[in-house]
Amino acid sequence: MFSITVRDHVMVAHSFRGEVFGPAQRLHGATFLVDATFRRPELDEDNIVVDIGKATEELKAVLGDLNYRNLDDEPEFKGINTSTEFLAKVIADRLADAVHAGRLGEGARGLEGIAVSLHESHVAWASYERAL
Amino acid sequence: MFSITVRDHVMVAHSFRGEVFGPAQRLHGATFLVDATFRRPELDEDNIVVDIGKATEELKAVLGDLNYRNLDDEPEFKGINTSTEFLAKVIADRLADAVHAGRLGEGARGLEGIAVSLHESHVAWASYERAL
Amino acid sequence: MFSITVRDHVMVAHSFRGEVFGPAQRLHGATFLVDATFRRPELDEDNIVVDIGKATEELKAVLGDLNYRNLDDEPEFKGINTSTEFLAKVIADRLADAVHAGRLGEGARGLEGIAVSLHESHVAWASYERAL
Amino acid sequence: MFSITVRDHVMVAHSFRGEVFGPAQRLHGATFLVDATFRRPELDEDNIVVDIGKATEELKAVLGDLNYRNLDDEPEFKGINTSTEFLAKVIADRLADAVHAGRLGEGARGLEGIAVSLHESHVAWASYERAL
Amino acid sequence: MFSITVRDHVMVAHSFRGEVFGPAQRLHGATFLVDATFRRPELDEDNIVVDIGKATEELKAVLGDLNYRNLDDEPEFKGINTSTEFLAKVIADRLADAVHAGRLGEGARGLEGIAVSLHESHVAWASYERAL
Amino acid sequence: MFSITVRDHVMVAHSFRGEVFGPAQRLHGATFLVDATFRRPELDEDNIVVDIGKATEELKAVLGDLNYRNLDDEPEFKGINTSTEFLAKVIADRLADAVHAGRLGEGARGLEGIAVSLHESHVAWASYERAL
Repeated sequence: MFSITVRDHVMVAHSFRGEVFGPAQRLHGATFLVDATFRRPELDEDNIVVDIGKATEELKAVLGDLNYRNLDDEPEFKGINTSTEFLAKVIADRLADAVHAGRLGEGARGLEGIAVSLHESHVAWASYERAL
Repeated sequence: MFSITVRDHVMVAHSFRGEVFGPAQRLHGATFLVDATFRRPELDEDNIVVDIGKATEELKAVLGDLNYRNLDDEPEFKGINTSTEFLAKVIADRLADAVHAGRLGEGARGLEGIAVSLHESHVAWASYERAL
Repeated sequence: MFSITVRDHVMVAHSFRGEVFGPAQRLHGATFLVDATFRRPELDEDNIVVDIGKATEELKAVLGDLNYRNLDDEPEFKGINTSTEFLAKVIADRLADAVHAGRLGEGARGLEGIAVSLHESHVAWASYERAL
Repeated sequence: MFSITVRDHVMVAHSFRGEVFGPAQRLHGATFLVDATFRRPELDEDNIVVDIGKATEELKAVLGDLNYRNLDDEPEFKGINTSTEFLAKVIADRLADAVHAGRLGEGARGLEGIAVSLHESHVAWASYERAL
Repeated sequence: MFSITVRDHVMVAHSFRGEVFGPAQRLHGATFLVDATFRRPELDEDNIVVDIGKATEELKAVLGDLNYRNLDDEPEFKGINTSTEFLAKVIADRLADAVHAGRLGEGARGLEGIAVSLHESHVAWASYERAL
Repeated sequence: MFSITVRDHVMVAHSFRGEVFGPAQRLHGATFLVDATFRRPELDEDNIVVDIGKATEELKAVLGDLNYRNLDDEPEFKGINTSTEFLAKVIADRLADAVHAGRLGEGARGLEGIAVSLHESHVAWASYERAL
C-alpha cells in the first residue's frame, strides 16, 4: 500500500459543552496542524499516489472554510462539540468529496482511503481514517 | 476509525543482556517519548474518543511507576531485556488495564484498541498495538 | 553562557484590530507552544542554571492565567493586539517577576536573562528576550 | 503487533516527466528523511523486533546506493519518475531483500512486514508498506 | 529584543567543488527548510515585529527564484560552492533588500536584523545573521 | 555571522545529589539529542564554516566517550552533578579542544565560537556557548 501526506494548519476558536471538557468549556482556541494522507494499492501512470500540488491546494481550500473563525458561530457546527477527532472527520469527509468530484484529478479515482490527523499541540493529536 | 494520542516522557536507566546489544549491554539510560493512542470506530456522546484529560493523567501514572528508575533493579523486570519494544507493550498493557478498570471513564469502554510508541532518540522508535 | 529551556503550551482565542491582520481580525484561536529560556554565565552550586522543576511549574502557572481563555475578554489586554510577539513579552515579564519574587528559588537570583518563544504553528513563531 | 523504526536520510537530484509535476519537471533535488519500520507479531528471544544496529546499517547501505547522486543518470531508474512514493517502494523492497538474505540476522526471519516513509519536506511525505 | 520567524522550503540540485566535500562533489540535491527571522527592539504601532503575511510572501518570492532548479546552471552562482551556509546569506541578503525596498511594509523599516537558517536534514543546518 | 550545526545523540545513566533534583536523585537515564554549533564571521575559501563531515565525526567521537555509560562510574565526573547544562559545557569544551588540535581541519582555525545544546526530552533542553 502506498500513501502520500500533505501538512497544513488552521487557527480557530471554539468552546465545548460537557463536564468532561473542564476549562475547555470556556471559549478558547487552537492551532491544528493538519496532515491529510491519501492511500492506494498501486501507483498511477505518472508513478504517483495523487497530484501532490492538487492535494495541497484542496487541503488548503477545505481548511480555508474553517480558518480564522469561531467554530461556535458556524451554522454547520451548531450545537456540536468540534473536538479534534470530530474535526479530523469533517476534513477527511470534505477531502473525500473533493476526490469524488474530481478536484484531485482523474488519477485520484484510484485512491482507496483517506486519513486525517490534527495535532492540537506537541503532546496531543487525533486522527480519523476512512475508505473512499 | 478514530483515534487520539497523548505524549509524555520517562527517563530510565537499564542494561541489556545478549551480544546483539553491543555496548548497550553496559548500564546506560534513555529518555523515552511515549505516545499513547486510543482507537474506536465511533465517537462517544460527547463527540470524543476518550477523555483526553484522563488519558493524559493515566499515561502519567503508568509512566510514574517507571520514571527516574534503574529498570534493572525493578523486581518485575528481573532477568528481562527492557527493550524499547518490550516497554511499549508494558505501557500498552497497563493502559489497557486502566481502561478495563474504568479509570479512563465510562465512555472509554467503547475503545477497541491501544497503540504505544516509544521514541528512544530522534532516529529510533518502537511501537506495540493491541486490541481492547 | 549557560541556558536551560522548558516547553509548555497554551490554547487561547483572540482577534486583532488593524488591516495588516487580514482575516485574523476575526475571532479565531491558537495553540502556542511556549519555550522559556533562562540564562546565566556560571552554574550554581548544584551545577545547574535553575531548578528545572520550579521553572516548569512557574511557566505552567504563568500560562494558567491565559489558558483556555478568550484574550479579548481579559481586562488586562483591553484594546491591545495580543500578537504572538506581544504575548512572548507578557510571559517573559511574568517569569522575570517570578524570578525576582524568589519563586524559582534562591539560586535563580544568579540568572541574567530570559527569552520566551511562542510557536503559533509549524511555520511561524516569535520571541522576546530581556535582561533580568 | 510490534515494530521498530530507524531514521536516516539521503540527498539526491532528479527530475520528473509529466505535466502533473509542474516546475518539478526541471532538474532539482531533495533531502529525503527515510523511516524504515520493521514489524512482527511476537518479539524474538532477545526481546526485540530486530537487531537495531543491523537495521540501521542496512538502511544506511541501501541509502548509500542512492546518496549524493542524480537519479536521472542511474541506469536502474532510466525513464522512471523517481517520485517520493516510488522511492519508498524501492527502499522497502531492498530492505526486504536484505532480510531474506539474512543480513539483518537470523532473528529477522520472524519479521512479517516492512514500511518505509520518505519525508521530502516538513509538509509532505510518502509511504509504502508490504508484507515479508 | 523581539523577533518573528517564518518557515518555508526549497528543493534544489547542485554539486560542490573541493575535496572537503567528498561524495557531495557529485551532482545531488537537497530540501532546505528555510527559517527567516526578523528582529527589532520595539514593536510597531500594530504591536507586531513585521506583517507576517508579507514576510511569508516575500520569503516565498525569494525562494521561488531558487526552487526546483539546478543551482549549478544559474549564472549568479557560476563557479560558486552553493553551500548551505552560503545560501543562508543569499536568502538573508535578498530579504534585506526586500525590507529596504519597502516590500515588507513601512513598519518593517524599524527592523534591525535578519537571520536565516537552512536545515539540510534532521541532523544538519546552517545560519547567517546580519544587521539591517 | 555564519554557523553550522550538526546533531547526534548519546544515551547515559546517572544520578544527582541535592534536594533540588527530587526523584532524579535516583539512578536513572537520558537520551540527549546533542546539537553542536560552530560559528565564524566569514566563510573559508571552500565557502563553508567548517568541514561538516569532520564536525560530525568529531562530535561522534566526543559523544562516544560518554555513550552507553553510567556517568556516576566515570572517574572524570566523580562527585559531580552531570546535569544537562554541565554536560553541554563538557561537550563544547572537548569540541573546542578538537578545533585547537586541528582535528576539524585547518580551515576550522577561523572559528570564533561553539555552542552545544542538549535536549533531554521534547520539553526540556540546555545550552552552553563559548568563544574559541
